[in-house]
Amino acid sequence: MIIDCHGHYTTAPGALHEFRDAQLAALRDPNAAPAAASPRISDDEIRDSLEKAQLKLQRERGSDLTIFSPRASAMGHHLGNEATSMQWARACNDLIYRVCQLYPENFVGVCQLPQSPGVAPAHSAAELERCVRELGFVGCNLNPDPSGGHWTSPPLSDRQWYPLYQKMVELDVPAMVHVSASCNPNFHATGAHYLNADTTAFMQFLTSDLFKDFPTLRFIIPHGGGAVPYHWGRYRGLAQDLKRPPLEELLKNIYFDTCVYHLPGIELLFKVVPAENILFGSEMLGAVRGIDVRTGQYYDDTKRYVDALALGEADRQRVYSANARRVYPRLDALLKKTGR
Amino acid sequence: MIIDCHGHYTTAPGALHEFRDAQLAALRDPNAAPAAASPRISDDEIRDSLEKAQLKLQRERGSDLTIFSPRASAMGHHLGNEATSMQWARACNDLIYRVCQLYPENFVGVCQLPQSPGVAPAHSAAELERCVRELGFVGCNLNPDPSGGHWTSPPLSDRQWYPLYQKMVELDVPAMVHVSASCNPNFHATGAHYLNADTTAFMQFLTSDLFKDFPTLRFIIPHGGGAVPYHWGRYRGLAQDLKRPPLEELLKNIYFDTCVYHLPGIELLFKVVPAENILFGSEMLGAVRGIDVRTGQYYDDTKRYVDALALGEADRQRVYSANARRVYPRLDALLKKTGR
Repeated sequence: MIIDCHGHYTTAPGALHEFRDAQLAALRDPNAAPAAASPRISDDEIRDSLEKAQLKLQRERGSDLTIFSPRASAMGHHLGNEATSMQWARACNDLIYRVCQLYPENFVGVCQLPQSPGVAPAHSAAELERCVRELGFVGCNLNPDPSGGHWTSPPLSDRQWYPLYQKMVELDVPAMVHVSASCNPNFHATGAHYLNADTTAFMQFLTSDLFKDFPTLRFIIPHGGGAVPYHWGRYRGLAQDLKRPPLEELLKNIYFDTCVYHLPGIELLFKVVPAENILFGSEMLGAVRGIDVRTGQYYDDTKRYVDALALGEADRQRVYSANARRVYPRLDALLKKTGR
Repeated sequence: MIIDCHGHYTTAPGALHEFRDAQLAALRDPNAAPAAASPRISDDEIRDSLEKAQLKLQRERGSDLTIFSPRASAMGHHLGNEATSMQWARACNDLIYRVCQLYPENFVGVCQLPQSPGVAPAHSAAELERCVRELGFVGCNLNPDPSGGHWTSPPLSDRQWYPLYQKMVELDVPAMVHVSASCNPNFHATGAHYLNADTTAFMQFLTSDLFKDFPTLRFIIPHGGGAVPYHWGRYRGLAQDLKRPPLEELLKNIYFDTCVYHLPGIELLFKVVPAENILFGSEMLGAVRGIDVRTGQYYDDTKRYVDALALGEADRQRVYSANARRVYPRLDALLKKTGR
């Protein structure tokens, strides 16, 4: 079984975007507010949006199940206020729930949090709990920079985040550290902001005692960990210079996905990070959608790169499914229920 | 001949720091201002600060010449105002000049610019010109984020930077893109801010037509290019999706150093980036000063990693000296003058 830990609903029906547009327009003109609390989308529209996209690629590339969340770049936590983010997160999460109901074999939900700059992360705990307990979701995407590229929130090690972590621990769900769009013209979203956030989060974890306070808290750092594996020696050296525990300690709580879009990068990832800490992921259809003219294959078909590695069968199975089932215990429980 | 393109005067005598402390104190209390326009440092103090540090390591590790600039983390462009940065840059650059006068065989100067948040980069052109024409420097360090982690300046592709680029082109000197300390608690300086800035700058270049306007402008992106080589496939795919030229075009103007502190990272760098675009660098004594217990060697002894690669002699010579002489033509001219 092959689990893709990193998929966003980037092909959601147009009505979702119209809903969001109306919601944002209403910030200036209350008359523009969406007509209903959620967008009107039929089951057929959902099927159509997936059959020709994610489901087609699952079949073609040979993955079985995608851990699926709302489109990250559209979370837009910096837009509007807490109420805006709450309504938008609920609408997006409810849509993911419908996807998972329509295709329970293919998708398992991870939720968007209703974060908003300056609002305590504790306020996101209720939506997380709703998604996990009522909608059967198995994790969340946590935005370390709800300001959208201005980085005005405290680091992930700050106690402000603790009530949300408490809820994650209570529910036994991990978070993928994932920023949204950037409204800072310095940062291209998928070409800079995403990778910077991954790198930043890792260093925040490295320099804090967060995991002493929450020994079972788990984070997935996506996009292959940003710059981290490439600079593994730098981080080993920094940990040593700063008298922090060796990186092996961090790896009890931190995992990386395989969203690295070329073979040399994937090779490096597996050279420096233990296979126990790598979860297969592609982010398809996401940041990079083209076909590499050199190989004739999609850049984001990361399974090809992993398959090209000389991995032992045990490691391959870890990366493709066992690690995901361990990091997302609620996914494991769901799968076991249906004999998978 | 082995040229290290990335060295900062991190071991400068204490009087330099006292000068800076007084300068910053004077921002609140004019009576605290430094007694003179520059710190009082004897030649012997300079010799002492280098003989047991950079010069010792040059000898031990087998490099010949370091392209040497003021300590990057101490540039602190976000502190004080334009006058503060101007006085501080001049003091630091003058000290580098003295180093280069004392050890002309071992050091060639690169200057700190007197940048300040909200101040047009054009205001840095005069100090660049002074350093190049009067002090014999061969390049500059350019801070893409003088706010120190708040990223409030326009991207490097913005026309605001053009007068400074004009001066760089006129003087035929490159810039190393190098941020300073971070005053944003999200970003650890050497563990996040530095690498993020490298990644960010590359994507700013990728998405702009800067090098159409300045075909001979040259940048070195340090720390092995941040996250870029590890995500080379992502950048190739993004360039393609965004209908930008292939990365090979960018490589006419952009170079990476070898400040990557483990062999797998260096291997990756050389796998994806042509040897023509890689300049040997170590940043010793810099971000990571420890000895790796696994190898018994300094993390930042990057020459060991490069030496461990199966490079052809021509590529080795490019990386160790020819590229630096090409990217810094004034260095080449200086060396030729003394028959090197």
